[in-house]
Amino acid sequence: MKSPRKQAFLDTIRSRRSIRQYLKDSPKDNEIEEILEAGRWAPSGLNNQPWRFVVVKNKVIKSKLALLTKYARVINGAPIAICIFLDSGSSYNRDKDILAIGACIQNMLLCAHAQGLATCWLGEILNKKDEVSALLDVGLDYELMAVITLGYSDEQLTKSCRKSLKSLILGEY
Amino acid sequence: MKSPRKQAFLDTIRSRRSIRQYLKDSPKDNEIEEILEAGRWAPSGLNNQPWRFVVVKNKVIKSKLALLTKYARVINGAPIAICIFLDSGSSYNRDKDILAIGACIQNMLLCAHAQGLATCWLGEILNKKDEVSALLDVGLDYELMAVITLGYSDEQLTKSCRKSLKSLILGEY
Repeated sequence: MKSPRKQAFLDTIRSRRSIRQYLKDSPKDNEIEEILEAGRWAPSGLNNQPWRFVVVKNKVIKSKLALLTKYARVINGAPIAICIFLDSGSSYNRDKDILAIGACIQNMLLCAHAQGLATCWLGEILNKKDEVSALLDVGLDYELMAVITLGYSDEQLTKSCRKSLKSLILGEY
Repeated sequence: MKSPRKQAFLDTIRSRRSIRQYLKDSPKDNEIEEILEAGRWAPSGLNNQPWRFVVVKNKVIKSKLALLTKYARVINGAPIAICIFLDSGSSYNRDKDILAIGACIQNMLLCAHAQGLATCWLGEILNKKDEVSALLDVGLDYELMAVITLGYSDEQLTKSCRKSLKSLILGEY
C-alpha cells in the first residue's frame, strides 16, 4: 500500500521542472528562507556542510550577474537568484564536497517546488565563476557551484523525459 | 499558511538521518525500484543523466564489498547496498556531473526515508573505487561515486545538527 506521504514525495520529484519564465511577483522572504533551510539540512561527508549562499534580489546586481551567462534572460526575468558556493575552507575531498552540494541544491529545488515555486538550475554560468565571485565580493575561498533562479512559474506545464530504469542498472547481485 | 504537502516535505528533509544498524528484514523489490526511480528523476546538466546503479543483495558479494571499507559493519548489517557510478561515456563536465549525481543520491535518500526505510551514504569506500568496480564487473567507463546501504532502521532516533543559516549566507543583495 502506498502511503500519502510517500506518494506525495514521489510526485514532487517527478513533477519538478526547470522553469525559465517567471511572473513578476517575488516569493516572500520567509519562503526564500525555507528553501535555504532545506539546503542547510542536506547530508555531507563528515557533516562538513561545505555549501554557502548569496541571495540576489537587487535588479542592478542581478542584471550584472545575468551578463555573465548566455542565459541572461532567465536571470533577468526571475525575481530572485540564489548563488551556491563551495567553501574551500570547509572542504575535505573535492568530489565528496561537490556531491554534497548537489544534494543541497536538490533539497532546495524540491522544497521550492513543494511550496508552489519554480526554479531553474543554471550551470553554464560556471564558465564565469571568478567574475561571479568578484561581482558578489565573496572572496577567493568560495567557488561558484551553481545559480538557481526562483520565482512563480509563467510557463505551461511541460513533459520531461529520462532514460529507462533498465538502461541505468549496470548489474544486480 | 503552510500547505500539508510543503510541511511534509520539509519534515522529510529534516528528519532524515544516516542509519548504520538495520533489522534483518529486507525491503521489497518494488520498494528498491521506487528508490532508483526517484534517483532517475534527478536533474542534470543538458539532461545527460550520468548516474548508473548496481544493486547488491547477495550476501557473499555484499561481504566482499564490505571488505573494501572500514565501515564493513554497516554494509554487512544492511540487507541491500546500492552502488552509484558516474558513466564517463555520458559525462560532459566532471563538476556538473558530480553535482547531478549528488542530486540523484539525495532523491534516493529522501524517497527511502519518505517510505519508512533507512539509508546510510558511504563515501570512505571511494578510496577503493577501482576494487569496487572490479568486484561488480562494471568496466572502466564507470567510476564509483557512493554506496548507499538500505533497510529498516534498528536505531533509536537521534538528533543531528547543522551550522546556522546565518553563518551560511555570505551576502544578500
